[in-house]
Amino acid sequence: MRSTTGWQAHGTTELRRVSIPRRDLRRDDIAVRVDFCGVCHTDLHAVRAHDGDDVLVPGHEFTGVVTETGPDVTRFRVGDPVAVGNIVDSCGVCVMCAAGQENFCREFPTLTYGGTDRHDGTTTLGGFSREHVVREGFAYPLPAGLDPAAAASLMCAGITVWEPLRALGVGPGSRVAVSGLGGLGHLAVKFANALGAEVTVVSRSADRAGEAVKLGAYDLVDSGDPDAMAAARDRFDVLIDTIPVPHDVGPYLRLVAVDGTLSHLGHLGTITVEAMDLLVGRKKLSSAGSGGRPATAAMLDFCAAHGITADVEVLPSARVVEALDRLERGDVRYRFVLDLSDLS
Amino acid sequence: MRSTTGWQAHGTTELRRVSIPRRDLRRDDIAVRVDFCGVCHTDLHAVRAHDGDDVLVPGHEFTGVVTETGPDVTRFRVGDPVAVGNIVDSCGVCVMCAAGQENFCREFPTLTYGGTDRHDGTTTLGGFSREHVVREGFAYPLPAGLDPAAAASLMCAGITVWEPLRALGVGPGSRVAVSGLGGLGHLAVKFANALGAEVTVVSRSADRAGEAVKLGAYDLVDSGDPDAMAAARDRFDVLIDTIPVPHDVGPYLRLVAVDGTLSHLGHLGTITVEAMDLLVGRKKLSSAGSGGRPATAAMLDFCAAHGITADVEVLPSARVVEALDRLERGDVRYRFVLDLSDLS
Repeated sequence: MRSTTGWQAHGTTELRRVSIPRRDLRRDDIAVRVDFCGVCHTDLHAVRAHDGDDVLVPGHEFTGVVTETGPDVTRFRVGDPVAVGNIVDSCGVCVMCAAGQENFCREFPTLTYGGTDRHDGTTTLGGFSREHVVREGFAYPLPAGLDPAAAASLMCAGITVWEPLRALGVGPGSRVAVSGLGGLGHLAVKFANALGAEVTVVSRSADRAGEAVKLGAYDLVDSGDPDAMAAARDRFDVLIDTIPVPHDVGPYLRLVAVDGTLSHLGHLGTITVEAMDLLVGRKKLSSAGSGGRPATAAMLDFCAAHGITADVEVLPSARVVEALDRLERGDVRYRFVLDLSDLS
Repeated sequence: MRSTTGWQAHGTTELRRVSIPRRDLRRDDIAVRVDFCGVCHTDLHAVRAHDGDDVLVPGHEFTGVVTETGPDVTRFRVGDPVAVGNIVDSCGVCVMCAAGQENFCREFPTLTYGGTDRHDGTTTLGGFSREHVVREGFAYPLPAGLDPAAAASLMCAGITVWEPLRALGVGPGSRVAVSGLGGLGHLAVKFANALGAEVTVVSRSADRAGEAVKLGAYDLVDSGDPDAMAAARDRFDVLIDTIPVPHDVGPYLRLVAVDGTLSHLGHLGTITVEAMDLLVGRKKLSSAGSGGRPATAAMLDFCAAHGITADVEVLPSARVVEALDRLERGDVRYRFVLDLSDLS
């Protein structure tokens, strides 16, 4: 067993710098020096819900450098830049894994933290740490030209909006709306714009129109303005809803065009919807989360080709609590990324 | 003002034979002798919810014969067989009407009963009556060869399943499931089969497999058998859910394939869905209801070409209460149709 240093939740508001175990490399494992790890709403939820008994080291979107390889590793060499997302293993044999949708693995994929390792049964510990050990099949070469700090957040926030945009056929001529201009939302704007769509941000903050346009949006609809919302009725083929708290989807469904889709990505739990809000316009409510390996690799290629990364605020990892608190208040443009070099 | 005889709700369980008013023909109106009117769950809900103050004459899927035409009528002549559904007017100028989706009219379409006439403000009275007066634009020539009694239920049950099947691209190679084998469900099976899809009925009654196959299904999945439901996981591109009472959509969503759609048609009200049931497989929850004029005409043409009508049990209209009671118990194969000739 090897060990590294990481940030472990202590109660629901504190994280402590501790020594944490990492497994010895299996034949297809790589060891990764974690340089940058994004801070996701999932991390915030996990910490706030932490019950004290489980060992919780958050973090599931990170980039770093390969420091060691198992004997069967073929895709990486020591020194390679690498990126890892929120899945580190899956059954590998079910129809979903066979189809390259490991995120929908019938046996449930192994999450990067808070999951159960399929071989030794231990609880996985995440990327708020200086080293991670991961099967090479769930690590991705980080394309040259992508800033490692700004690329970290592609691995969860990015792929979570990428998969539905692609699955819903967004491309030239598509009219796409994005609600919630945070980690997921700002990347949805960049991706949809680069895919050729006309993008509109839907926000309760009309003063963010300039930001939206800078990210690649055509315009902004003020969700607090009933006239603006009425004028945008039935306007969008796809609405990417990244609002991170429970909310009424009705007003957003009304913006979706006939036979269009609202992809609800911002949070889990129960969604309630009025049948009439779907019926009038044959609208669809969908969701998505994370991504399969082929889609993740395709997204990274697309990002490299279009020069897309997240807009991030990088903090030393010792300021992780500050990052979580500010994320909780929505005080971030648009994703916090922890610099783990202070753990060396 | 002219008058006719119809069945008017009296309380929540009784209907009385009374004289009801019909408007004098406007320039683009036709008068229809109603021969057959289907009995829809909407009629049942309307009667059971009847508060006594409003005048309620149910019935919104009927066939008959044109008996009189206004001076501007061009599409019908006296003696023509005709069919009418649950919409008798719309604003005619909004984007939805312009697109031939009068069912989604921005000003709300005028319902065949319980609606408000756009010209005189009266409450519309439905097809449980011997005569109806309707704008010719919302009446459809009944194709030769379709039995008028069995065709009546195409006009609500039929179009309600036809529009989503077409909008979701069902055709050769599609894998379609239908849950709820009633008025809507049995027509969904017939339509999907005739469109070239492989159709499966999902029912808690395994003993209905023979019926299902007779209607055109390939097989039946017993929704009460956990093993059968597990084996059918992720199997269907489209699931047409016609279950007429509130129910957990989770088990049905699990039958839908990646990027597939569950079209929820059986009832209105609030739907609750777990985000995870949509997320795993990027599944879509949709709805639909009624149909626009082009789709309704296309459905009738398709039915004539394929010899499709509803399987109905025809009762004299005087037995309307029996029909509603039996519908409430699910005791019908598959749609009641009232024969209005006893009102002459």
